[in-house]
Amino acid sequence: MTRRIHVIGIGAGDPDHVTAQAVTALNDTQVFFAMDKGAQKDDLVALRREICRRFIREPGYRFVALPDPPRAKDGDYRQAVADWHAARARMWADAITAELGPDGVGAFLAWGDPSLYDSTLRILETVAGQVDIDYDVIPGVTAIQALTARHRIPLNDVGEPVLITTGRQLREHGLAGSAVVMLDADCSFLTCPASTRIWWGAYLGTPHEILMSGTVGEIGDEIARLRADARARHGWIMDTYLLRSAH
Amino acid sequence: MTRRIHVIGIGAGDPDHVTAQAVTALNDTQVFFAMDKGAQKDDLVALRREICRRFIREPGYRFVALPDPPRAKDGDYRQAVADWHAARARMWADAITAELGPDGVGAFLAWGDPSLYDSTLRILETVAGQVDIDYDVIPGVTAIQALTARHRIPLNDVGEPVLITTGRQLREHGLAGSAVVMLDADCSFLTCPASTRIWWGAYLGTPHEILMSGTVGEIGDEIARLRADARARHGWIMDTYLLRSAH
Ligand SMILES: C[S@@+](CC[C@H](N)C(=O)[O-])C[C@H]1O[C@@H](n2cnc3c(N)ncnc32)[C@H](O)[C@@H]1O
Ligand SMILES: C[S@@+](CC[C@H](N)C(=O)[O-])C[C@H]1O[C@@H](n2cnc3c(N)ncnc32)[C@H](O)[C@@H]1O
Repeated sequence: MTRRIHVIGIGAGDPDHVTAQAVTALNDTQVFFAMDKGAQKDDLVALRREICRRFIREPGYRFVALPDPPRAKDGDYRQAVADWHAARARMWADAITAELGPDGVGAFLAWGDPSLYDSTLRILETVAGQVDIDYDVIPGVTAIQALTARHRIPLNDVGEPVLITTGRQLREHGLAGSAVVMLDADCSFLTCPASTRIWWGAYLGTPHEILMSGTVGEIGDEIARLRADARARHGWIMDTYLLRSAH
Repeated sequence: MTRRIHVIGIGAGDPDHVTAQAVTALNDTQVFFAMDKGAQKDDLVALRREICRRFIREPGYRFVALPDPPRAKDGDYRQAVADWHAARARMWADAITAELGPDGVGAFLAWGDPSLYDSTLRILETVAGQVDIDYDVIPGVTAIQALTARHRIPLNDVGEPVLITTGRQLREHGLAGSAVVMLDADCSFLTCPASTRIWWGAYLGTPHEILMSGTVGEIGDEIARLRADARARHGWIMDTYLLRSAH
């Protein structure tokens, strides 16, 4: 008898992006473990609950909040991250043992796809070294697919590569060819040449969705303005964009 | 009255990766247009038909095969590709007009996600310049997500970028950091240093699925052997892999 855990990709904002496999896993789950991200992410918590309400046929499930352990602000950065990771893994291992019976089934709902800029799988791997669990991963539609679908564009030029990267990396290394940028709180596209083409999307798949496309020179400042306004209005923002260097 | 077209991402092999949004679009469709890829891809055609059988509630739909126009083998490569693209667009425009009533609904089923190494959206954009159609794109789970889910691994190192690329590009430019390689008929990972880590998957999500992981030095030759055997046995193969340079 082993506790089982599903890591379920739920798509990046649109409940209709949930897959048939995710629906099966949702219906198999007794306890949903959720990281507590604070009040500003109310809309995201609401989406998770909506997905459960909509796709689970016999609602016998529970939500269990996992508080985020505090992260050391000073001292060595790598050590702080390692300590935080270890503290989280301990907390998760304890919660799994306490909340699930010996053959119980729990789940983590991962935004988009669990493999992309998400720590759930890394932490669970550590947890699996400490307590006896069996876990599987259910892939999901990422924010990248949501972005290209709404703009109706190919991700790559014919036969060409695409870099998936972060705002910080873009600022440090610049752009070559095509890149999708995630985790960018700083409108890092403004550091690209004016001729760079950009396809931008915020709140993709949600009722707040905003789409913009053009060149950085033409619409870069407007995106920055729109982004700041939307963020102030909703209290949070998630945005991502595809960049292509002018040939 | 405008003909409508859905471009539907159906996932990369597992019918359970179909999303709720794709199911709605499948049920909205009267005619499925399918590119004719020849006999060796029978399994892939079968998967598309299985998806329709399983998810469409009132089976009033038809399949229409679009033959692939011949591609010039000699002369200028770029010109040949452009001519081929134009010939395809003409063929699709004719088929859409002939097969759909003025307010009819057609669809293209795209393997994985329609934005990733797939020509459907490029051709449809040209078609939309020739005939009056309204099209939308329904994102899907890509082979990349299928790969990482089955290996239960993160795609990226923490805060680091990932390149999505092809076998040819990998051979020409080498590896830096993490890369997912698609469209590789030549086991191009064998050109990477022996210490490179590889997570390989073939026929992901299908009954033929094969997974291997290790370093290129340890398992590279074994993957090449497995791949050749499987390809001979099934008559086709689709495989993809994640590489990470040793730190
Ligand atoms: C922590 S990462 C998680 C990504 C997620 N695992 C995925 O597969 O999309 C969060 C980043 O994804 C992007 N993102 C996620 N959801 C989004 C949405 N609905 N609209 C725009 N960007 C989104 C943003 O760049 C955001 O900073
Ligand atoms: C023409 S591309 C289309 C990719 C597709 N649009 C997607 O989103 O995954 C085909 C390539 O995708 C990868 N691929 C697609 N399905 C796969 C599967 N089931 N298993 C392994 N690789 C797959 C292989 O690298 C193959 O050469």
